[in-house]
Amino acid sequence: MKKEGILIVISGPAGSGKGTVVKILREMIPDIGFSVSATTRAPRPGEEDGVHYYFMSRDDFEESLARGEILEHTVYCGNYYGTLKSEANRVLAQGHDLILEIETDGAMQVKRQFPDAVAVMLLPPDGKTLEARLRGRGTETDDVIRTRLAKAKEELVLSEKYDYVVVNENDGAEACAALIAEILRAEHHRPARMKHVTDPFFH
Amino acid sequence: MKKEGILIVISGPAGSGKGTVVKILREMIPDIGFSVSATTRAPRPGEEDGVHYYFMSRDDFEESLARGEILEHTVYCGNYYGTLKSEANRVLAQGHDLILEIETDGAMQVKRQFPDAVAVMLLPPDGKTLEARLRGRGTETDDVIRTRLAKAKEELVLSEKYDYVVVNENDGAEACAALIAEILRAEHHRPARMKHVTDPFFH
Repeated sequence: MKKEGILIVISGPAGSGKGTVVKILREMIPDIGFSVSATTRAPRPGEEDGVHYYFMSRDDFEESLARGEILEHTVYCGNYYGTLKSEANRVLAQGHDLILEIETDGAMQVKRQFPDAVAVMLLPPDGKTLEARLRGRGTETDDVIRTRLAKAKEELVLSEKYDYVVVNENDGAEACAALIAEILRAEHHRPARMKHVTDPFFH
Repeated sequence: MKKEGILIVISGPAGSGKGTVVKILREMIPDIGFSVSATTRAPRPGEEDGVHYYFMSRDDFEESLARGEILEHTVYCGNYYGTLKSEANRVLAQGHDLILEIETDGAMQVKRQFPDAVAVMLLPPDGKTLEARLRGRGTETDDVIRTRLAKAKEELVLSEKYDYVVVNENDGAEACAALIAEILRAEHHRPARMKHVTDPFFH
């Protein structure tokens, strides 16, 4: 009975600061796993299949998608990028936890395909702070900011379907990552994940 | 929308060390709540009703039991001792977490009456360690030890119905309490307990 890793999904609206939090979290957890992504873009010189990416044809990627073999994916510059379910399972079976930082739509897809995944929604403390963060970037038009706020309102409703809701205060990324690390340690103590202790207990 | 406390139930077989762990945990959590127990024993000089205990007649206690108003109870020297549901709710409504250290039978009763309770089963690392701890006390007969081991086997099966399973290594009470404190912090971030953030988010 081996200890298995946990797939943790970190998601949240634009302005929640999930990129920074996940970067800190990866450094914080010593034994974190890394999954190799799949992509339909052509390999660059020096890139190896199965090391830098799993390079796939567009047809193969779309077939895998249809078969439900891809946990989450996105399109960037006309190419698919995604995480293969088989790759995630490989890393988890080795006992490593795996972090996926994805958009809220994708997070719920992962949860449906992978009910054991732990989904964390990251939020700014309130709507005003969210708007200030989006404006603070200084790169977005009013239209874009309005669209992002409207989307955040929809995403907030989804928070009930997550396993955890974590607030990322201003300058709070470190504390936020520490809390998510605690959530991960707690989740490792769910009865279903403690069978390596309880099953052989009296044997 | 106020932040509510969590009722956490710590249970486990004799030899799991739950008494020590709970003692450390109470010191570790600065804002922990205290509930006044109910009892049918007579007040001693200086003891005040509602301060040291809620003093109840045997009839009243048994009626409360029948009405499901008592979260957990035990009998000691012919008197009832228990925790009133109303008292637990009072402490939780003030935003304090409440720890109940109880036997496994009682833990499942609490969980049924109070589904939001977080139940933690404390275990020694394995059966051999459990037996060594029971023998190490030097106060129990072989018969008592055999009975306790048999009971522990039954209790282990119940672990699946708990929310968390935590292993108390030898000399591990501090680490164990720290882990349970993490579990509590994590549980405060369940979506249903974050409505004080998510409900007023855009208002």
